Amino acid sequence: MLINVAETVVADALRGMAAAHPELTVDVENRVIVRRDAPFAGKVGLVSGGGSGHEPLHGGFVGRGMLAAACPGEVFTSPVPDQMVRAAAAVDSGAGVLFVVKNYTGDVLNFDMAVELAEDEGVQIAKVLVDDDVAVTDSLYTAGRRGTGATLFVEKIAGAAAEEGAPLERVEAIARRVNASSRSFGVALSACTTPAKGGPTFDLPPGELELGVGIHGEPGRERRAMMTSREIADFAVDAVLEDLEPTSPVLLLVNGMGATPLLELYGFNAEVHRVLAERRVPVARTLVGNYVTSLDMAGCSVTLCQADEELLRLWDAPVNTPALRWGC
Amino acid sequence: MLINVAETVVADALRGMAAAHPELTVDVENRVIVRRDAPFAGKVGLVSGGGSGHEPLHGGFVGRGMLAAACPGEVFTSPVPDQMVRAAAAVDSGAGVLFVVKNYTGDVLNFDMAVELAEDEGVQIAKVLVDDDVAVTDSLYTAGRRGTGATLFVEKIAGAAAEEGAPLERVEAIARRVNASSRSFGVALSACTTPAKGGPTFDLPPGELELGVGIHGEPGRERRAMMTSREIADFAVDAVLEDLEPTSPVLLLVNGMGATPLLELYGFNAEVHRVLAERRVPVARTLVGNYVTSLDMAGCSVTLCQADEELLRLWDAPVNTPALRWGC
Repeated sequence: MLINVAETVVADALRGMAAAHPELTVDVENRVIVRRDAPFAGKVGLVSGGGSGHEPLHGGFVGRGMLAAACPGEVFTSPVPDQMVRAAAAVDSGAGVLFVVKNYTGDVLNFDMAVELAEDEGVQIAKVLVDDDVAVTDSLYTAGRRGTGATLFVEKIAGAAAEEGAPLERVEAIARRVNASSRSFGVALSACTTPAKGGPTFDLPPGELELGVGIHGEPGRERRAMMTSREIADFAVDAVLEDLEPTSPVLLLVNGMGATPLLELYGFNAEVHRVLAERRVPVARTLVGNYVTSLDMAGCSVTLCQADEELLRLWDAPVNTPALRWGC
Repeated sequence: MLINVAETVVADALRGMAAAHPELTVDVENRVIVRRDAPFAGKVGLVSGGGSGHEPLHGGFVGRGMLAAACPGEVFTSPVPDQMVRAAAAVDSGAGVLFVVKNYTGDVLNFDMAVELAEDEGVQIAKVLVDDDVAVTDSLYTAGRRGTGATLFVEKIAGAAAEEGAPLERVEAIARRVNASSRSFGVALSACTTPAKGGPTFDLPPGELELGVGIHGEPGRERRAMMTSREIADFAVDAVLEDLEPTSPVLLLVNGMGATPLLELYGFNAEVHRVLAERRVPVARTLVGNYVTSLDMAGCSVTLCQADEELLRLWDAPVNTPALRWGC
């Protein structure tokens, strides 16, 4: 691993973000990343956060048209309520704050506590839970479905609504609609290595894969001998479509888990498009890359979001963050 | 690996690029990626190419303000002259074409042949060789220094000059100035896996690293027991500064080789900034991410480019490609 010691990995990364991105205010000590130009009069601020190790999620999505602030926890560990309260206070213009929370037990508990604390300080808070992963219900870190790739869709689309000046209840409703319209399925071709452990987080022998893996390496639906890109695309897309029957063109995220080369990810995207065409699901927009990662895990996930005209318009709206940028 | 069979990896990836990027024309059979809106009357077209496995280089840099076309070869294998000639013909508006060539023996030979063939067809061609890697002179695939991270600076900055309508000799001179002002040094923490071989390309035991590695896993200067991020930054930056004494602020690329998590790469960026501050080298701009990769190799490289006011202005100019995008 390219680190100093496990204990300083998150603080080191935040110092590095501060050095690379003068457009962000990075509070290394309190672990809050904020748009330098926040708050904006009359505009809702989006705040998200979660364990580190999934970069660019969430810190790389702070900027115009997406998050106003992000709170990184330790690796694969929820941030604490104090971080979220600080972030909310930093970005609230009086129009309120939307918390975007991936559905993991620790995150849910801590964000719930932060809602109370921030409201005590006079900030109006709404909250949306992301739970798009169809692989399993109730797993190692979760009651209900896990939150994964759809987080990017929720943060981008609700962020665009906030940027346009939509009021809090409207931004919240859009975020909920995106989550309800989105489903994901992930596959691991290798385990990931956490700095604290220094070795693989779980045992996945070479030549096998884990279908339905979570973004912390949580077990999925089944383990099999290695499959082709074509077979994995069939399995992943069909798993998503069992749970979502799109009646309008979809947004497609073909996401890498961290260590899968972009060359392979684009090849996988070709197979995902092939299956979707066979299942008569038209694709409105495609995003391919490493966006919701699990450190150095090899593998990929597929997220579909059924996008009506409004969601599509908000997806296309300008965004200017370290990891997602267009139209600005 | 997330592939079908080794033989179709490049074609599969090109089909996936075509599906994701309607703004590009992807000729899968002839392996040429072209801006859909090329050629532009009166503007020089930049064409680059090289072996696949370094994505997003070069195909991910095709678009406004950067490359007009790219030619991907097989994995770690030069493209053939026919690809470059097709690309040149597709993007030439009469103002000529600049070939950007990384200094590897196969690429140099094939681009040289393409220059002759394209000129026979009436296209005016200039060529710039990128050779920024200070680690070794003369290595497995190269006579002289290898071309690595500076390729991104050359393609971005010369691409901006071409976009502004600078004539061919001026675009070529700027590209040469960027290369002459840039130096790189890379480090491998693991070997990479090529689809054809299906296993590591070289033997790097866990707990060791290769200082001065090339982007195909070519041997570097020395192998050592694992070092900290801090120690690696000291070694890499000092290796670059032995060969480049910047008299103006630098552009900094902190590049991941493919499998190093962004969390670790940002932490490494903090250490690179620390060394540069200690050596009194001011940093004008920083880019952190996986841009010039070696499939699933873990590791990183540091590239510095001494940027005068003109180069800095061209760096900041709008760019709109799959992998690099700002100001558009």
